[in-house]
Amino acid sequence: MADTTPSLLVVSAHAGDFVWRAGGAIAAATMRGERATVVCVSYGERGESASQWLAGKDLAQIKAIRRGEAEAAAAALGAEIHFLDAGDYPLVESTETVQQLIDVFRRTQPTVVLTHPLADPYNGDHPAAARMALQARVLAQAIGVANADGSYPSTDEIIGAPPVFFFEPHQPEQSDFKPNVLLDITAAFPLKEKAMQCLPAQQHMWEYYTSLAIRRGVQVKRNAGPNLGLPVDTRGEAYQRYYPQVTDVLA
Amino acid sequence: MADTTPSLLVVSAHAGDFVWRAGGAIAAATMRGERATVVCVSYGERGESASQWLAGKDLAQIKAIRRGEAEAAAAALGAEIHFLDAGDYPLVESTETVQQLIDVFRRTQPTVVLTHPLADPYNGDHPAAARMALQARVLAQAIGVANADGSYPSTDEIIGAPPVFFFEPHQPEQSDFKPNVLLDITAAFPLKEKAMQCLPAQQHMWEYYTSLAIRRGVQVKRNAGPNLGLPVDTRGEAYQRYYPQVTDVLA
Amino acid sequence: MADTTPSLLVVSAHAGDFVWRAGGAIAAATMRGERATVVCVSYGERGESASQWLAGKDLAQIKAIRRGEAEAAAAALGAEIHFLDAGDYPLVESTETVQQLIDVFRRTQPTVVLTHPLADPYNGDHPAAARMALQARVLAQAIGVANADGSYPSTDEIIGAPPVFFFEPHQPEQSDFKPNVLLDITAAFPLKEKAMQCLPAQQHMWEYYTSLAIRRGVQVKRNAGPNLGLPVDTRGEAYQRYYPQVTDVLA
Amino acid sequence: MADTTPSLLVVSAHAGDFVWRAGGAIAAATMRGERATVVCVSYGERGESASQWLAGKDLAQIKAIRRGEAEAAAAALGAEIHFLDAGDYPLVESTETVQQLIDVFRRTQPTVVLTHPLADPYNGDHPAAARMALQARVLAQAIGVANADGSYPSTDEIIGAPPVFFFEPHQPEQSDFKPNVLLDITAAFPLKEKAMQCLPAQQHMWEYYTSLAIRRGVQVKRNAGPNLGLPVDTRGEAYQRYYPQVTDVLA
Amino acid sequence: MADTTPSLLVVSAHAGDFVWRAGGAIAAATMRGERATVVCVSYGERGESASQWLAGKDLAQIKAIRRGEAEAAAAALGAEIHFLDAGDYPLVESTETVQQLIDVFRRTQPTVVLTHPLADPYNGDHPAAARMALQARVLAQAIGVANADGSYPSTDEIIGAPPVFFFEPHQPEQSDFKPNVLLDITAAFPLKEKAMQCLPAQQHMWEYYTSLAIRRGVQVKRNAGPNLGLPVDTRGEAYQRYYPQVTDVLA
Amino acid sequence: MADTTPSLLVVSAHAGDFVWRAGGAIAAATMRGERATVVCVSYGERGESASQWLAGKDLAQIKAIRRGEAEAAAAALGAEIHFLDAGDYPLVESTETVQQLIDVFRRTQPTVVLTHPLADPYNGDHPAAARMALQARVLAQAIGVANADGSYPSTDEIIGAPPVFFFEPHQPEQSDFKPNVLLDITAAFPLKEKAMQCLPAQQHMWEYYTSLAIRRGVQVKRNAGPNLGLPVDTRGEAYQRYYPQVTDVLA
Repeated sequence: MADTTPSLLVVSAHAGDFVWRAGGAIAAATMRGERATVVCVSYGERGESASQWLAGKDLAQIKAIRRGEAEAAAAALGAEIHFLDAGDYPLVESTETVQQLIDVFRRTQPTVVLTHPLADPYNGDHPAAARMALQARVLAQAIGVANADGSYPSTDEIIGAPPVFFFEPHQPEQSDFKPNVLLDITAAFPLKEKAMQCLPAQQHMWEYYTSLAIRRGVQVKRNAGPNLGLPVDTRGEAYQRYYPQVTDVLA
Repeated sequence: MADTTPSLLVVSAHAGDFVWRAGGAIAAATMRGERATVVCVSYGERGESASQWLAGKDLAQIKAIRRGEAEAAAAALGAEIHFLDAGDYPLVESTETVQQLIDVFRRTQPTVVLTHPLADPYNGDHPAAARMALQARVLAQAIGVANADGSYPSTDEIIGAPPVFFFEPHQPEQSDFKPNVLLDITAAFPLKEKAMQCLPAQQHMWEYYTSLAIRRGVQVKRNAGPNLGLPVDTRGEAYQRYYPQVTDVLA
Repeated sequence: MADTTPSLLVVSAHAGDFVWRAGGAIAAATMRGERATVVCVSYGERGESASQWLAGKDLAQIKAIRRGEAEAAAAALGAEIHFLDAGDYPLVESTETVQQLIDVFRRTQPTVVLTHPLADPYNGDHPAAARMALQARVLAQAIGVANADGSYPSTDEIIGAPPVFFFEPHQPEQSDFKPNVLLDITAAFPLKEKAMQCLPAQQHMWEYYTSLAIRRGVQVKRNAGPNLGLPVDTRGEAYQRYYPQVTDVLA
Repeated sequence: MADTTPSLLVVSAHAGDFVWRAGGAIAAATMRGERATVVCVSYGERGESASQWLAGKDLAQIKAIRRGEAEAAAAALGAEIHFLDAGDYPLVESTETVQQLIDVFRRTQPTVVLTHPLADPYNGDHPAAARMALQARVLAQAIGVANADGSYPSTDEIIGAPPVFFFEPHQPEQSDFKPNVLLDITAAFPLKEKAMQCLPAQQHMWEYYTSLAIRRGVQVKRNAGPNLGLPVDTRGEAYQRYYPQVTDVLA
Repeated sequence: MADTTPSLLVVSAHAGDFVWRAGGAIAAATMRGERATVVCVSYGERGESASQWLAGKDLAQIKAIRRGEAEAAAAALGAEIHFLDAGDYPLVESTETVQQLIDVFRRTQPTVVLTHPLADPYNGDHPAAARMALQARVLAQAIGVANADGSYPSTDEIIGAPPVFFFEPHQPEQSDFKPNVLLDITAAFPLKEKAMQCLPAQQHMWEYYTSLAIRRGVQVKRNAGPNLGLPVDTRGEAYQRYYPQVTDVLA
Repeated sequence: MADTTPSLLVVSAHAGDFVWRAGGAIAAATMRGERATVVCVSYGERGESASQWLAGKDLAQIKAIRRGEAEAAAAALGAEIHFLDAGDYPLVESTETVQQLIDVFRRTQPTVVLTHPLADPYNGDHPAAARMALQARVLAQAIGVANADGSYPSTDEIIGAPPVFFFEPHQPEQSDFKPNVLLDITAAFPLKEKAMQCLPAQQHMWEYYTSLAIRRGVQVKRNAGPNLGLPVDTRGEAYQRYYPQVTDVLA
């Protein structure tokens, strides 16, 4: 019998991205009893670890540190986490990494997918991860596309057409990010805070992303209207839906 | 005690527009027991009644015919209908018409609003109606904006911030219409068919919009994915959400 | 019997615009034996006549000067010309001016329409004229829209759906002008030069628009490819088609 | 002899807008000894004064309160302030208001202009004020456009072509606001704080716009790069330049 | 002596694409006595052959089936067909495939090129084929680019600058497809129907693309206007021109 | 002690591009005593050397000719020049070329970067060079990214965040090029003319780019306004800023 529990899949270019940008959505899902899986395509060992390089750490040490932090953050959010160690700065797109992502898609059978938006003039790894995630999502739907072991047709279960949401980049307007979904993460925010605190080297980011959650929370309230009675301390995350929403009720 | 029944408000430039473009959404709402109100800003007496002018009808007769047809169609959909008789071809924006719409918004307290998209190179009345609907929606939120009788501050109940959806124009790509919501109207489609048949002068449109419902239904299925098990004869309508969706679950 | 000679209609905000931006297209049409009609919505008496104001001319004198120049230029191009004298800086949109344009459309039965593009951050009169031209084109198609004398239904001949081309604004990129039609005006260019010389107060513009004709001519050649054998001194004008091209041959 | 002191002109739809969105730019200008003039097209008496209506104030009282607050804030920033009292919700565009703005442009001879961006789906008054400001800026350049007293040609000094910057709307992405100028307002921020405190009814906005100044400050630092040595507590405001920058040094 | 017969080149990602999307244009060309060549970059063996995989066919069998169907369809349309067998799902861009396409361009000397549009969020193979087709079209123009056998400079005939038209993707609005050419395929439609019937495994598509031809035919009539007297059963295909049209007559 | 002299870096796809499109900016910089470095990613030996292939030159000869011309032009402009010889038509993106560019960035420590815009439907090498330049600029900022010799962390000096300007493509509107910076190159224009004359095979381009400099000069004057008193023979170059401008004065 098919497992009908919703399943959230988050594809993150570097080890920390999923925490800052999607921690609320992940925690909200696991708090509802849903499954959540995070895939870090790289550790961000070259491009996002300046302080550790300056402190004299070597490549293996830096990867281990970032892996440990990401595992702790995922645990705080109640999510599984996997690492593809595909390298960063630049994260190079390859058929091998796409095949690994196809396998993740088929194994986790996601009902919702989160990843980076397709433009980011400050960091090319983010769109590269997103392009691979989108490609894997399409390929994983086809029976003719090979299994993890290279055999075909696929005997792994092919996937459906899960909706994809882009999470917020660091400089949204410069990345042509126009939110069309404002997610209320008020209840999940304490878990997101815990997850952020698993990344001690970036303590200045705790405040930055708390402030962003407040700002997006104001927009949640503004767009919901006063009649919904949302509390003053509403917290939010912004998303951009990539495919049209399918629904039987306009709301 | 506040009435919490959802309330759908449809602002239509001409007497027939709401049937072709939003009949499915209206019927789906009333079949769920919700209230639905249609406002026709004009009758479409000059711009969409060529056959009646050719048949020698005069202005009053044409308005009466179109009003009768629209009333029958609204009844078939289970909706209330009002006519502002603001004139068409061109539909001229005015503070009077906006004030009438403000009153409709405050009286119906919509939880969802449907109207035309903001561009249509083939018919300027459609965007004019949409601009007035959007303006009225914002003004109706402010206590400082006058009541129907001109007194202020408003003692009529001000409204919240209902989401707005643009329905599909006749030539979508030319009108920069990019659907981001695909509505499954399969169950409601028989009522939409009945409503279309209340407009006998436009019999060729019955087939055209049935064919469109099939086409949008194919997209409903394609975007929902095979796992949702939607039937072969799924019928759809396409909408474009104007404000970001507010939600506490990504789906 | 219907006149099947092609009929070109040019709607120009000010008295000089049609010469600089569309003189080649007009001359090419009349050289083929087609009819061409220019409508100047205003004389450009306030916004484009600084030197005459500085020379101490009064409003009536300036209008007369500009009218004379435009008549001479139209004659050089082989076109009829009409003046609506609707005022400039700002050119205010009005139902009266639109009605006058409806009458021109019905009288000239254009098979092709040229006007300004819809954006121009340097001169609001240009988009205002274009909006009125586009509105009149749609209204003139409807039998329910009144005749010039206010009677209805229309006994004047309603029009078809002539294609609309926007001619090039002074600062194209800033006006979001993206040419999708490059017109070869090599044969017509001598007439355009004559027409430009009918505007002696703007002698510096002769050179500017000759240089532009060369530049657009280079693009004509580049986009046609070497195989068409266009001459070195090809001259061009750039246009942006507003509605999709209807054709039975892709070329 | 011409006054060559730079002159900043800010066109604000409502009495408070200039404080939140442009207070830093204004203070920075006056701290450099430049002139700054604020024009409030309306008081925001209907659309942005809900608490005062609820407190039982009447229209005249509300206008007076808002005028007083705005005068105090302008004084804190070192700017002159004028009120056109053109009405709000809706702010209706009119030739009279545009003429008043033309007079302000000619009188203040701005070297820089700040106003709202051209889109705001949450508040139609903002784009309406911006459209009038832009129109007035173009008209004020023409000698043929009348003086304040209706006489023409203009004997008031016509203006040059001052650059225009749009300040940040409340919901930037939804208003298609893409900052292309990040202004460092660190030194001016204490004055902006004082100005915000002149608007006691909106105390929750003090924190909101302080948080925004920090966020835009982070982007100032990020886009400047580490080599410029900007301090940790850099404060910023975001702007969108409407016309191309003219310069003789790329930097 | 140069062959001046027009030559149509169609670059199709998979074996079936050219039939559904461009069958009318191809048949119209061959009915006029022009040459038409179809290049299928892959067979669509993995991504578009689910039913055959489910029926237990192996890779070679599926390729053979799809090749046979495509050959029959091309024959029905009167076109030559070639297969590059570059693999699908994903179709990987390579210099080898581009070189093969360069050779096809030089050999067929196309006067018109058709291919997929550059965006398709549902199928990455389509844009990949289009990017390679566009690249090959530019490279084939340069004498310095090698011949099929690797020698250079080119002794194969270099090509001109043929216009490129994108044909309609399955979900046009989601693929940012905005038709700017509506092709009347009424006379060619019976041949397109025959070609569709060569693809028996996709019988549901026959109806879907017949319905689309009717829908685009309605737009052909609407945009042509009533004066052209197009028949009620006009059939159409929609295209998007990539480069500006070069012409000496606006029409 | 750090060298604080401004340093301009120009990344050019082919040997001639920097002269036509950015010669004025380069000369202006060196005339101010600043450093300027040009990197030619390829010689343009296949795609932009038709006349030399026709004259029977071989590949090595053509590269040598183009190198010599580019060296002479750079000398005329007062700039250093380097050649990566990465091949053209197509210019293939590679990690090797990006690494070479990283080294150039770290060595030259640019304060301003110029390159091609990201779209050019006529020449894919231009965007390819731009993408590599942008990628190298980001990677060169990271201490974790290797030195030229492959060792890491970087001991070469990492760079800051220099602004990037795209220079004008040959067909600007078709390349979605919208200038937001107009550079006054009047004083530098004689040096640009000298540099152009170092490319004798493209004499027709001298005139074309002189005419363009006049045209952009007119826009410099128009956007600066009459009050700045720019001379009649102002010469300009157009640029598009990629990242937001960081400044402490709006002007």
